[in-house]
Amino acid sequence: MSKKLKLGLFGLGSVGQGFYELLDQSKSPNLEIKKIVIKNPTKTRTIESSIFSTTPTDILDDLEIDIVVELIDDAAVALEILKQSLQRRKPVVTANKKMLAENLEEIFWLQKKYNTPVLYEGAVCGSIPIIRNLEMHYAYDALESFEGIFNGSTNYILTKMIDEKMSYEGALGQAQKLGFAESDPTLDVKGYDARYKLAISIAHAFGCFVKPSNILGIGIDKLSAYDIRFAKQQGCTIKLIAKAQKIGNKVFGIVAPTLIPLENPLANIKNEFNGLTLIGASTGLQMLTGKGAGSLPTGLVVLSDVASLASGFKYPYPKTTDDNSVAFEKDALINVYISSITSGVIRITDFEEFTGGYQGQGAHFMKGWISIKKLLEWIDRKDLSVLLTGDSYFRVYEPKKAHEFSLA
Amino acid sequence: MSKKLKLGLFGLGSVGQGFYELLDQSKSPNLEIKKIVIKNPTKTRTIESSIFSTTPTDILDDLEIDIVVELIDDAAVALEILKQSLQRRKPVVTANKKMLAENLEEIFWLQKKYNTPVLYEGAVCGSIPIIRNLEMHYAYDALESFEGIFNGSTNYILTKMIDEKMSYEGALGQAQKLGFAESDPTLDVKGYDARYKLAISIAHAFGCFVKPSNILGIGIDKLSAYDIRFAKQQGCTIKLIAKAQKIGNKVFGIVAPTLIPLENPLANIKNEFNGLTLIGASTGLQMLTGKGAGSLPTGLVVLSDVASLASGFKYPYPKTTDDNSVAFEKDALINVYISSITSGVIRITDFEEFTGGYQGQGAHFMKGWISIKKLLEWIDRKDLSVLLTGDSYFRVYEPKKAHEFSLA
Repeated sequence: MSKKLKLGLFGLGSVGQGFYELLDQSKSPNLEIKKIVIKNPTKTRTIESSIFSTTPTDILDDLEIDIVVELIDDAAVALEILKQSLQRRKPVVTANKKMLAENLEEIFWLQKKYNTPVLYEGAVCGSIPIIRNLEMHYAYDALESFEGIFNGSTNYILTKMIDEKMSYEGALGQAQKLGFAESDPTLDVKGYDARYKLAISIAHAFGCFVKPSNILGIGIDKLSAYDIRFAKQQGCTIKLIAKAQKIGNKVFGIVAPTLIPLENPLANIKNEFNGLTLIGASTGLQMLTGKGAGSLPTGLVVLSDVASLASGFKYPYPKTTDDNSVAFEKDALINVYISSITSGVIRITDFEEFTGGYQGQGAHFMKGWISIKKLLEWIDRKDLSVLLTGDSYFRVYEPKKAHEFSLA
Repeated sequence: MSKKLKLGLFGLGSVGQGFYELLDQSKSPNLEIKKIVIKNPTKTRTIESSIFSTTPTDILDDLEIDIVVELIDDAAVALEILKQSLQRRKPVVTANKKMLAENLEEIFWLQKKYNTPVLYEGAVCGSIPIIRNLEMHYAYDALESFEGIFNGSTNYILTKMIDEKMSYEGALGQAQKLGFAESDPTLDVKGYDARYKLAISIAHAFGCFVKPSNILGIGIDKLSAYDIRFAKQQGCTIKLIAKAQKIGNKVFGIVAPTLIPLENPLANIKNEFNGLTLIGASTGLQMLTGKGAGSLPTGLVVLSDVASLASGFKYPYPKTTDDNSVAFEKDALINVYISSITSGVIRITDFEEFTGGYQGQGAHFMKGWISIKKLLEWIDRKDLSVLLTGDSYFRVYEPKKAHEFSLA
């Protein structure tokens, strides 16, 4: 880092502001923001106005600008900025999880094609260094599985509902008031946001690419007071868990509300915090926790990425090798509780392996191994709620034969 | 990593074996061990004998060997190997915490002098990526403090004593039987091992160097059944904690048994696991946990370091800048409980600020802020036991004046 690097910044929202402030405070002699491209030039800002522009080419076509920092909301525009930056051999730092998750395979190849790196630690769980550690620390470890709390607003809502007995609506309102949840909370509470982060993490953990739309995501919006009482009775709490597991050369993944035993360290990750546990063949169980979002935590990670680019770092994608035959598999069997306040809503035959029915807390619970495909059929049903069991792993799905009998 | 890199390995103990096996399994086309220098050539080994040598220069003077991996026990010999490797411009990976902790400032300068990097993630808490994250992830964050469980064998012993009511001797014996504690457990139970790791971490967290002998280390060998009952009564467990804090441009550090409230996430790190929490100005509270030792966990980290070297990575030491005026300060005030089964062993005037005396559980407890210097005077006394309070931070020590009165 001897030469002074000039940065072009797209977007000055919450993360952009945090990044700008931290870089400013750092008084780094090697990094300088030359231009900030914004959408709305009429907004009042505290930064000197000559740095602003509304024309993307003011950054893209400026030969003096070495690194592009993309922190806008719009995924389609962000992708265009990324592509044009790489074409011009400008390395990119981005935190746009939707854009990354939906286009990661293409972005992987574009980096190779233009020999220009993209770093995006801020896209997955804010301040927690997940991607960097998957790339470097776990490069030679055979990861078996990982699971975690990848969304802060739903974790905040669940903490308030379970620990403080607030209603879903009340908890959501408070999360919105504190800025932990968007005014349209759909992306969070229906598990979309966590799916984006899971898709990105799977690529780095196992070396295979998966579109987020191929991952089943069950939200927390159908959880009932019955479910919460039931969880407590079982010595558990409920967390919205994103998890992935490798079995042979297949990778499975899901986002779903999950019964987490209180002695599981994920049970203690509360409010807006994120965290994950990983199981590696050599390293065994590891855990990382921290703030999953926020102006300064995510801004700091963006700044770390910029500094890493400046020192020549790029993701080696150690698991995305030519001979990696690992592929994501949409369907699998998972171990669930399904609850409904009316009986007869689901049948024993819906399960691949039915392990028990319970009535209590005012609701009916049925437990067993069920296919992801079957759960997908029910995704819009409001009369039932699905909880993964905390000990559940994936099982490869080999559908039952229709007529399993012998004539002998 | 296009060229095949040849490695020279010193030592084939537990970590060396793990490293060798993992590299072998990885079938990496880019990394190959060319020579292993061992002390004892008569030991039966499963590896082909032509790879072994007992002559260090067989590695050091081999121009084909690109990287030196140093995994021997002897700190003095390890330092010599490191120096000779750097002189020959061979990058080094080592996990020798004693050698590193006692010579880190010199090793920092030697890397600059010879423009040749040394990586040593395996020296601090085995599989947990602490150094890498301090270097990269926290490069631009102003860390305020960190504290953690840096020694697996003492954590195993404390877990057995507190959760399973085993005696100290019984727990130590079991740890030795399982291979978590050495036959001479002094380094672990007296806190030396944790001090080495703390000294190394302080350099990367705050950019200042401290000799481990300048850090007060209180072991777990004087903890009594009274202390454990007292901790439980307070809703706490006891952990051997290594902690450091920056106040202004002073850094403080200590290793000591500490009362940890059960709701503190460190309380849940049990048996041979390690873990630490960090508080950064931007990132807030973060936690990392995992296996702190062992053949495969540490071997994996050594392999990650080798792969990082191969891809051009070196520690940027972002906080060890010319204008960093931060310095380690030996003395400070800390908040402690001191217990003894006999009364009158310590006096109220021993404290800088006395906050209470308690009698219970068959022992006398005195609580207050006391200077590290005073505790150092008592380090060999067997009739009292010191517990840091869990909420304790350091206070800058400004000694009380001898005659604090006014004539007015």
